[in-house]
Amino acid sequence: MPPLPRKNDPESIAARRAALGLDGDGDLGAYVKAAESVTGVAVIPVSVAQIRILLGEYELSEDGDVVETGRGDEEVVVPLAHTEGGLTASVQRGAKAAGLSGGIRTHVVADRITRASCFVCRDAGDALALARWIGDRVDEARAFLRDAGIPELSTYAVLREVKTHVVGPMCHVLWRFTTGDAIGPNMMTRNAYALNMAFVLPNAPVPIERALLEANMGGDKKPSYEFFESGHGKTVIAEVTLTDEAISRVLRTTPGDLEALSWAGTHGAVASGMQSVAFTPASAVAALFAATGQDLGMVGTSSMAHGTARRVEGGLHASIRFPGLEVGTVGGGTNLPTPHEWLTVLGCAGPGTVYRFAQIVAATALALEISASSAMATAGSENFFRAHFERGGIR
Amino acid sequence: MPPLPRKNDPESIAARRAALGLDGDGDLGAYVKAAESVTGVAVIPVSVAQIRILLGEYELSEDGDVVETGRGDEEVVVPLAHTEGGLTASVQRGAKAAGLSGGIRTHVVADRITRASCFVCRDAGDALALARWIGDRVDEARAFLRDAGIPELSTYAVLREVKTHVVGPMCHVLWRFTTGDAIGPNMMTRNAYALNMAFVLPNAPVPIERALLEANMGGDKKPSYEFFESGHGKTVIAEVTLTDEAISRVLRTTPGDLEALSWAGTHGAVASGMQSVAFTPASAVAALFAATGQDLGMVGTSSMAHGTARRVEGGLHASIRFPGLEVGTVGGGTNLPTPHEWLTVLGCAGPGTVYRFAQIVAATALALEISASSAMATAGSENFFRAHFERGGIR
Amino acid sequence: MPPLPRKNDPESIAARRAALGLDGDGDLGAYVKAAESVTGVAVIPVSVAQIRILLGEYELSEDGDVVETGRGDEEVVVPLAHTEGGLTASVQRGAKAAGLSGGIRTHVVADRITRASCFVCRDAGDALALARWIGDRVDEARAFLRDAGIPELSTYAVLREVKTHVVGPMCHVLWRFTTGDAIGPNMMTRNAYALNMAFVLPNAPVPIERALLEANMGGDKKPSYEFFESGHGKTVIAEVTLTDEAISRVLRTTPGDLEALSWAGTHGAVASGMQSVAFTPASAVAALFAATGQDLGMVGTSSMAHGTARRVEGGLHASIRFPGLEVGTVGGGTNLPTPHEWLTVLGCAGPGTVYRFAQIVAATALALEISASSAMATAGSENFFRAHFERGGIR
Amino acid sequence: MPPLPRKNDPESIAARRAALGLDGDGDLGAYVKAAESVTGVAVIPVSVAQIRILLGEYELSEDGDVVETGRGDEEVVVPLAHTEGGLTASVQRGAKAAGLSGGIRTHVVADRITRASCFVCRDAGDALALARWIGDRVDEARAFLRDAGIPELSTYAVLREVKTHVVGPMCHVLWRFTTGDAIGPNMMTRNAYALNMAFVLPNAPVPIERALLEANMGGDKKPSYEFFESGHGKTVIAEVTLTDEAISRVLRTTPGDLEALSWAGTHGAVASGMQSVAFTPASAVAALFAATGQDLGMVGTSSMAHGTARRVEGGLHASIRFPGLEVGTVGGGTNLPTPHEWLTVLGCAGPGTVYRFAQIVAATALALEISASSAMATAGSENFFRAHFERGGIR
Repeated sequence: MPPLPRKNDPESIAARRAALGLDGDGDLGAYVKAAESVTGVAVIPVSVAQIRILLGEYELSEDGDVVETGRGDEEVVVPLAHTEGGLTASVQRGAKAAGLSGGIRTHVVADRITRASCFVCRDAGDALALARWIGDRVDEARAFLRDAGIPELSTYAVLREVKTHVVGPMCHVLWRFTTGDAIGPNMMTRNAYALNMAFVLPNAPVPIERALLEANMGGDKKPSYEFFESGHGKTVIAEVTLTDEAISRVLRTTPGDLEALSWAGTHGAVASGMQSVAFTPASAVAALFAATGQDLGMVGTSSMAHGTARRVEGGLHASIRFPGLEVGTVGGGTNLPTPHEWLTVLGCAGPGTVYRFAQIVAATALALEISASSAMATAGSENFFRAHFERGGIR
Repeated sequence: MPPLPRKNDPESIAARRAALGLDGDGDLGAYVKAAESVTGVAVIPVSVAQIRILLGEYELSEDGDVVETGRGDEEVVVPLAHTEGGLTASVQRGAKAAGLSGGIRTHVVADRITRASCFVCRDAGDALALARWIGDRVDEARAFLRDAGIPELSTYAVLREVKTHVVGPMCHVLWRFTTGDAIGPNMMTRNAYALNMAFVLPNAPVPIERALLEANMGGDKKPSYEFFESGHGKTVIAEVTLTDEAISRVLRTTPGDLEALSWAGTHGAVASGMQSVAFTPASAVAALFAATGQDLGMVGTSSMAHGTARRVEGGLHASIRFPGLEVGTVGGGTNLPTPHEWLTVLGCAGPGTVYRFAQIVAATALALEISASSAMATAGSENFFRAHFERGGIR
Repeated sequence: MPPLPRKNDPESIAARRAALGLDGDGDLGAYVKAAESVTGVAVIPVSVAQIRILLGEYELSEDGDVVETGRGDEEVVVPLAHTEGGLTASVQRGAKAAGLSGGIRTHVVADRITRASCFVCRDAGDALALARWIGDRVDEARAFLRDAGIPELSTYAVLREVKTHVVGPMCHVLWRFTTGDAIGPNMMTRNAYALNMAFVLPNAPVPIERALLEANMGGDKKPSYEFFESGHGKTVIAEVTLTDEAISRVLRTTPGDLEALSWAGTHGAVASGMQSVAFTPASAVAALFAATGQDLGMVGTSSMAHGTARRVEGGLHASIRFPGLEVGTVGGGTNLPTPHEWLTVLGCAGPGTVYRFAQIVAATALALEISASSAMATAGSENFFRAHFERGGIR
Repeated sequence: MPPLPRKNDPESIAARRAALGLDGDGDLGAYVKAAESVTGVAVIPVSVAQIRILLGEYELSEDGDVVETGRGDEEVVVPLAHTEGGLTASVQRGAKAAGLSGGIRTHVVADRITRASCFVCRDAGDALALARWIGDRVDEARAFLRDAGIPELSTYAVLREVKTHVVGPMCHVLWRFTTGDAIGPNMMTRNAYALNMAFVLPNAPVPIERALLEANMGGDKKPSYEFFESGHGKTVIAEVTLTDEAISRVLRTTPGDLEALSWAGTHGAVASGMQSVAFTPASAVAALFAATGQDLGMVGTSSMAHGTARRVEGGLHASIRFPGLEVGTVGGGTNLPTPHEWLTVLGCAGPGTVYRFAQIVAATALALEISASSAMATAGSENFFRAHFERGGIR
């Protein structure tokens, strides 16, 4: 095949579609600014589930802390874009059990996202001197971004802290930002680049051989322990105390069986060197991300999770911690037609809604964890087999 | 909001759409078997890049080995579903450099996928006895699946080996299958369940307290070291030896700069406890998965990767190893309209094409690695900043 | 200080001791072959505990499997070289509880140790061809070692399997041996070197750029997931079902408290990215290693462990799995005076005793786990505080 | 064997020795306070190497920062307790190459050690409230320890920061201390226990179900990513720029060969899921720990290390970072006869010497890394084989 034209004008699009044997013009007007060489679309069905969530209301303080200002109790209709037969029904079953037990309670714990740069120096002595110098100038660096007057810099990406880590002659630097309702990789890139090139390089107390904008310490699209512990995006916990009755009637298992499954699954995770400990959070995260225009390359990282289960008087406490839900409700793909539609259904279209959205993702994942675990928890796991077998959908 | 109807008949769909304020009927006829409570769609733009790939031709031997039978050299047009401005252009730039250097060569190394069950016994002594018993009966277990005459069992999911791991009273069992051109979680579930309930339980030499169909050792939708080392899906390596000229003219950097970036990025990955070592494979994997109806919940696991770079005479050798690309070209979402269209463009629609598809995913990711690394490799990373800044698309 | 003489003749030793201001001649005759530049000794007090162990009797089969041939029940006196006040008493307390509960039962699961070499090839294609070539020739490689007639080769280090792992142009090769009653690093080094240089290099089907005897994949003295899962040395499990009465009377806690501690501790381990999950196995491993002339550089790897606790009818089942106890009862430091003395006390001096010794290490560690956990299990952990506070020894 | 007496009076010791068939009285007077049931000794030969180290002089500031106040240049005689033939010679060879290159330069980066407690609350909401409460009261907590007037509390263990981590209903709390010249586990235990029981429990804003003194998040004697990144003990970096001539004449290899080995070894470490990346630091750490009365149960954690190598103009820069050298020069086993002797040789007996000692450990490990790597770096690794073969000592 000869080289295809690259542009997004109607003629180039038509030429590409013709060369690939695709019918019609694809109706791509809404997408020509979303990417280069747009040629068609991918359509994924969206199903919905209803989940009772006790959502926290949160604000970001001046100092960058996430502060709870209130709490609601509502039935949220959640859009799930996927083709896995049984998945939506499973989320709904978990939601039913949670709803009967009073609903899922969610907490936004923190909000930080990083760009992990690296300065290569002559030796470790110099790298340590640079690390100390940077560590002493966080306030100055924040002021630089605010006052530099460089039009490309974003005032949404506010520098909060800096973490340095010296290995050999490398001074790794994690610039930690808040980015408002956007996920914000581009604004972070711009601001971090400006910090590297215009704040650090000209003023550094030691010679710098290389300034690398990204050198892998921050967990950008790659799961890592640093990500799992310290977060990247919104750190959220969802929890519910399932009643004995909900476990018996809806989930058709027992607290003891669920606890036994959690015990074996946690040890299986450890035995296999898993950094996350949970059953299937990625299924829920991916389905919500695909419906709402999130970056699907972040499904793996945003699905890092730490789940727990514990018998308590009258039932079972279940929870899941997401160290870094990389979500946005403005920018990126969120403005495109169908994402905007589904974010509107969620009450998450536009500014001021990102903490709400992050909590809904966590609650949806917990609903699925409850149901998927229950299907595997009974002796012999008969339920799980049947769920897949009878409702296996198009597989 | 009151409970919505759950079914996929036209009236229920219409009722759900009305309740959510969505216009029209959504034109969902193609999707009503894909999931429960289908209510609408998610549309993602698809752009294309052209990549020169020296694709291996492979067959699965009787014994379950992947055997190379030939090798081609073609320009593949790759569909990328995403909304990240600059991403498609970056893949194309990497592909151009690779093409000038002779193309990307891909290798399918292995093909196995697991269902990780667990038998909880009285104590470790019993669990060890069970592990030995199972380990001695792999041929019998394979024959059982083939000859049992249970209609629900799949003959596509062929048991190949069994790995046991005893911790405390738990005998974890990784049933390792090949599943043909399908990704095959449901067929594995059925077959593993039958092995657990009809082969192991009635015949086991020790009492079994619980048989759990899945207990987390296999890496299903959760990255783990076990997954990273032993694979889950198709194990594929893509490689290219970039020429000095391609590096200079297309990537606008040098082999030395690229090697320095790889060195700092590898140490950054180690310092942050990353199991993968690569730059941004998830962006490519997610874009191809979304375009072709793969399971998006597997983006995180399928993106586990180990990249290398090394200066050689006349250029730089670059490679990426994917331990487990969880891909299918039949079943799942691949039969839906747009996935089928894009798989057809790729020459990967239908049986006998899954190894081709897996190689294309790996090659696309390598093209992106080359370009993304190059943008960060030059002193100061000016290219990377400019790439994001000038072509930042809708962000 | 001027350069000291290096030899181990009496004059050189005396010259070194004089230069360092050390009195006397150090009485070093027994040690002059143990290391270069021997100048003095380190003396560590050894205390003893008595542990009831149901020891398995094991033999290595022709095929390299560890086969149980019988089982005993004895009170073993265990020597512990350390200076941590309270440690020996804690081992003894755990042993008492275990003894009242019927004793600790131990299992040797497997016996393999590796030398992890690496061949650097031109590219991944060549490295894959080499990996296949080696994988097809394990029997030949074993025969080569047996029949080569090279006097430096050891017939104790028997090649069992080979595991290859290709990343980029590297073909990592794990030569997996059994080494009899010795820990055997030197015999493995010799045999692996001969395999690399005399078996692989001259016959390889592709050009090899470099043959590296050790390239870090095997876990030699460095904990790794590969070590944790696949072992390195003797894989051993120790277990006991503690009775309610023993838990109450000796450990002064309850099964529920112990289970709660295990639950929190397991999740704490996961949260901190620990590959081992246990409380303090290294304290026991180090004390036994130091008393018996084991390689103290292997304390970290040999202490990798996976502990479990689970309430059962009438008590609590506790276990610990050591993937790789790197122990020997011949060679290394075991022949020196005090190690030989303590190995004799253990019934582990000389050939045929290494499986016994490995089990004793595991049982000792489990006794300590039981007691240390109990001290922390009660609400408020008062016992633990008191144990350290009142019997804190010389600290 | 009947139960042995437990005490350390001469009669009990004699009775134990008689029962075990040990000759004489063991001459144990110096050790009766070091542990319970002392019965004999373990004797390990100590050899010495001479290393040129550019040692930093450091002080701990009021705020807990380690501040460099000067730098020396001396030949340190290092005692190594081990029985591994070739090890001391290898350290000496590495030291020679480093010395010719100007010596090893060492840096103390930080000084913190933790006790990782855990409060189990009713649910995650309460655990988060507790975490915030504790986080807001670090100054109060520090003052409490200073002013409480509880005689058991240690004023050496100064609380510096608190890190909290909430998972499910668990509020993990890492109390981070400095402990002066002692390693200090007992003083930390006392102080952390007092904080838990007397500061947190009576004042907490939410009900606390359990207060566990240690729940595994801190890395006490168990390697973890948390330990690897954030440290536990003294964080130290050692580095040297080896000259081409030293590499050629002393190490008999080339910078290119060393860099190639480092590259393959780093990727081998990643491929095997190693948290440390280095060759054999544990051999050096164990040998120095055994000679100087350190806690041998900490060999594994203290050996966590991150090594780098990079060609530079005229040679090769090599470095190693130890996140947590758990060392003391007062307390523990350091006061016993032979440890005191060897610490005196090192100039590290008594207060004010712990940073010096930590640097010597790091420098010794780097000397060994240099030599061991060189032995494996040449094509075919002939040197390494010969080193083990010809000087294999008593193995």
